Amino acid sequence: MTETTSVKAFGTEAAEKPLNSMEINRRVPTAHDVEIEILFCGVCHSDLHTAKSEWGPSMYPCVPGHEIVGRVVRVGDHVKKFKTDDLVGVGCMVDSCRECQYCKEDLEQYCEKGMTNTYNSPDPHFEGSPTFGGYSERIVVNENYILRIPENMDLAAVAPLLCAGITTYSPLHHWNVGPGQKVGVVGIGGLGHMGIKIAKAMGAEVVAFTTSEAKFAEAKRLGADEVVLSKDEDQMAAYKGKLHFILDAVSAQHDINAYLNLLRVDGSLALVGAPEHPLPVAAFSLIVGRKSFAGSMIGGIAETQEMLDFCGKHNIVADIEMIRMDQINEAYERLLNGDVKYRFVIDMATLKG
Amino acid sequence: MTETTSVKAFGTEAAEKPLNSMEINRRVPTAHDVEIEILFCGVCHSDLHTAKSEWGPSMYPCVPGHEIVGRVVRVGDHVKKFKTDDLVGVGCMVDSCRECQYCKEDLEQYCEKGMTNTYNSPDPHFEGSPTFGGYSERIVVNENYILRIPENMDLAAVAPLLCAGITTYSPLHHWNVGPGQKVGVVGIGGLGHMGIKIAKAMGAEVVAFTTSEAKFAEAKRLGADEVVLSKDEDQMAAYKGKLHFILDAVSAQHDINAYLNLLRVDGSLALVGAPEHPLPVAAFSLIVGRKSFAGSMIGGIAETQEMLDFCGKHNIVADIEMIRMDQINEAYERLLNGDVKYRFVIDMATLKG
Repeated sequence: MTETTSVKAFGTEAAEKPLNSMEINRRVPTAHDVEIEILFCGVCHSDLHTAKSEWGPSMYPCVPGHEIVGRVVRVGDHVKKFKTDDLVGVGCMVDSCRECQYCKEDLEQYCEKGMTNTYNSPDPHFEGSPTFGGYSERIVVNENYILRIPENMDLAAVAPLLCAGITTYSPLHHWNVGPGQKVGVVGIGGLGHMGIKIAKAMGAEVVAFTTSEAKFAEAKRLGADEVVLSKDEDQMAAYKGKLHFILDAVSAQHDINAYLNLLRVDGSLALVGAPEHPLPVAAFSLIVGRKSFAGSMIGGIAETQEMLDFCGKHNIVADIEMIRMDQINEAYERLLNGDVKYRFVIDMATLKG
Repeated sequence: MTETTSVKAFGTEAAEKPLNSMEINRRVPTAHDVEIEILFCGVCHSDLHTAKSEWGPSMYPCVPGHEIVGRVVRVGDHVKKFKTDDLVGVGCMVDSCRECQYCKEDLEQYCEKGMTNTYNSPDPHFEGSPTFGGYSERIVVNENYILRIPENMDLAAVAPLLCAGITTYSPLHHWNVGPGQKVGVVGIGGLGHMGIKIAKAMGAEVVAFTTSEAKFAEAKRLGADEVVLSKDEDQMAAYKGKLHFILDAVSAQHDINAYLNLLRVDGSLALVGAPEHPLPVAAFSLIVGRKSFAGSMIGGIAETQEMLDFCGKHNIVADIEMIRMDQINEAYERLLNGDVKYRFVIDMATLKG
């Protein structure tokens, strides 16, 4: 039987209930496990969707949180990669099969057997129990699924890199964004604001697209070279056939064809948001210009480390608003209203108090 | 003023009228022009759409035909690439700007100023007149937009390569289809039957998808290694995550998500058909597995020559049914009913008689 310890957490017992304080069990580190004291945890839209069973029925109790930064407090006997006091991060996954072709290619996020999500996956160590995420005092994770945090960074503002950062870095990297390119970033929110910063740091000329003129100054402050009001047809028409790549970070329904029209020949638009309903795509939007409408989901462990090192080198962190653990339900309300610049991060010290 | 000669043709004066015999003017070859006596002309679905103004209003009179095989009968003073009696082909375009980045990259089909279609484009040589296609005795084309036909081939069955062949070869080539790959071809018609032959010749394992069990034996005869009944969910499920690439040659509305699910991680589905209405695409179909829904339109001139040489080497031609010019209206009816295996080709000698 798996040896356990009890830790404080914040979660919910059912889709319609608010989050509240609870106790959960964590396993005592086995040979390759690392126990992490959680310092900060970012608040991702997925947390809210999962807590409320909006992406299909979730497992309960549900303890969300997959933008985790903390410090190693204990390591298993055979752990080689980390030691006590190391600054570490945990993102969207805590395990995968490690044997399939994709795991072997550092694409664990696309594991053939399905990765083990940081929360709301069946916990391989506790039959019948879900994994519990970062809204908790401590977490225990296999050393192969833990990231190293560069020393020079603001730890609270690093937390969102573990999901929002890698979700935007991975497609920008995969589609070879760099100098000499004009790159669109659609939607200036939790994901999009990271997309602007990272695309700019990669050397591209960044064109931000927003539905709100009020966000123009913000987009420029974040690093956008140009900003386009997406509901203005004339402004959109000026970019027809001009963009090498588009990162689409919008989760609401929106007109994909309007953006595909802005791509150059052989250009790709990568969707990282997840609109609820299918998006209608006109054949001619793709056929004329050999364009691609693609998607991308977080990134592998090696790539996540690469992203953290890249962000460390370029001094990139998220723009955050710090909250206390007991403000999480209110934060979810504000998230639904788009009222955050640009990511809530929970100061996990407030869970203990 | 441009010097002209009158030639026999077959076309229509209005969307609602049948095609009939008519006389049209062709320019006398200028310095870089080649005059071709047309021997065979394939019948593409686009011919029918354009004759009937189904893709927006066409220019009339409309003389369709862009799968042209013929013999050079006269060349302009400065023509270097061809001489009298050469066997040549003309595909979907007869000109482009020749100066934009895409023309310079041998991607004339995506010319920034728009290619000059073989028919139904404003003719740069005759103000106010459309270009006239291959349903005619002769055609005059700049030498840079003419293809060389390998000597060993069945000329009538070569004609469809100029559109159906390049339309399928180009994406298969662009997405690097080859040995060790499992490649899907959706729809076994004019395009799809070429897709099966070419993908197979490129060394891929070919899986054909059809809505009709009656086409199973045909698909195998054409070269498919496996055939799947696309309306059978169990048969489809067996290919989930298995295909490296899918060539989608269906012009009717169909469920793209069902096919995206069959792609491996990083796989692409390239649409070469043109369904009338937008196709709904679910975000998760693309995001999970970093998949791409792409499109492709014919190919450049250099690539079309490459395709012809490839087909010559591998003895690939279309499966055709030869018709007389005066059977064209009946052939259009049969095309609408999917009643052709797999391409009608007009014996142009029957236009003279």
